Amino acid sequence: MTTGVRRRMGVEERRQQLIGVALDLFSHRSPDDVSIDEIAAAAGISRPLVYHYFPGKLSLYEAALQRAADDLADRFVEPMEGPLGVRLLRVMGRFLDFVDGHGPGFSALMRGGPAVGSSTTNAMIDSVRQAAYIQILAHLGITDPPARLELVVRSWISLAESTALIWLDGRRIPRAELELQLVHDFAALAAVSAAYDEEMAGILRRILAEEPPEGPFTELITRLIGLVPQEQSS
Amino acid sequence: MTTGVRRRMGVEERRQQLIGVALDLFSHRSPDDVSIDEIAAAAGISRPLVYHYFPGKLSLYEAALQRAADDLADRFVEPMEGPLGVRLLRVMGRFLDFVDGHGPGFSALMRGGPAVGSSTTNAMIDSVRQAAYIQILAHLGITDPPARLELVVRSWISLAESTALIWLDGRRIPRAELELQLVHDFAALAAVSAAYDEEMAGILRRILAEEPPEGPFTELITRLIGLVPQEQSS
Repeated sequence: MTTGVRRRMGVEERRQQLIGVALDLFSHRSPDDVSIDEIAAAAGISRPLVYHYFPGKLSLYEAALQRAADDLADRFVEPMEGPLGVRLLRVMGRFLDFVDGHGPGFSALMRGGPAVGSSTTNAMIDSVRQAAYIQILAHLGITDPPARLELVVRSWISLAESTALIWLDGRRIPRAELELQLVHDFAALAAVSAAYDEEMAGILRRILAEEPPEGPFTELITRLIGLVPQEQSS
Repeated sequence: MTTGVRRRMGVEERRQQLIGVALDLFSHRSPDDVSIDEIAAAAGISRPLVYHYFPGKLSLYEAALQRAADDLADRFVEPMEGPLGVRLLRVMGRFLDFVDGHGPGFSALMRGGPAVGSSTTNAMIDSVRQAAYIQILAHLGITDPPARLELVVRSWISLAESTALIWLDGRRIPRAELELQLVHDFAALAAVSAAYDEEMAGILRRILAEEPPEGPFTELITRLIGLVPQEQSS
């Protein structure tokens, strides 16, 4: 039951409420299509009052994006326990939860929509990528990565982004399959690099040695071997 | 020998000259750092005359970008002859030639620099990606790709972009290695998809059946098998 008396919010509380309302609207439609009037209506306040807290739509968008970026970076944090493949699979589940819940906003942001691209938003995207990179290196137990490992990890992070973006356009593949595929893609990119570089091969062998027979990495290898023609039959 | 008499250029000829001069400058430094004054000086004409042909820097930038986009899309065209791996390797050579020759401009564009991102430039980037996608499907001999193949091809195109971008930052890996790696990455992403989907497995088997023993795909598989522990020794 409500009392009919509206409690007056403090400044920071009101700002946080507006950010939450805006993030919800920016997540479910392209941010270009969301007006300050809608945000005001959804927050139950007047348009001038929105401007009292945020000078304009861009600053509110950037604040909402910062909250989303913090949320996403938090999802990369995973206990340092158990097989790497299983850890990565859990992170991919949380990443695709995020993508699933912020689809139109994520697409607009990553495709660099005209009104939303700015050096501030680009810096936020880069900082989320960097957070993911740091987490992966920590799980690999590597502090000073060779150039080839850095390339594998950073390019895989980019692949995870683009795979999610392509998937959002129609969602034609089951999400669980996509999560497992991204884990396997990481192993595959690392394996390609390891195929031609002894240092990378050493890193990969160390990872595989700790994987259980029923983990996602071992399962992939078993299936891949099944794809290769067993004999040169020609 | 020059005659000392400066021939007067026609309008279209002058526009094309300015685009060429601008593309050269935008390729070698971040476009944000290139001024109209520099473009005028490099073209040997006055600043007001530049504005006679292009209303502003953005329109000249977009014209230069269109020329670069056409150039890049042309490089994807490859004769439908010989093993797929070798064809793709040649295309990767031309792609990295392009990236190498337009490094700072390519980085600024793909990282969505503040002054250069616009719906026009984003549409040009998308059209180059689409040109690459169409070419790959044509070489695979597939007109109506299943969702999983579309995802593999499009996400690999994105991977090639990000790999090139990461490589440009320091060029710490030999270029030839990077070209071969991108070809292998394509095979690896296709193999991951094929490991769990019979339709993709059929497409991959058809590709591999036509690959020669000395081609890049077969070599990769041989090396990958060498990475896998041959026996469950535990």
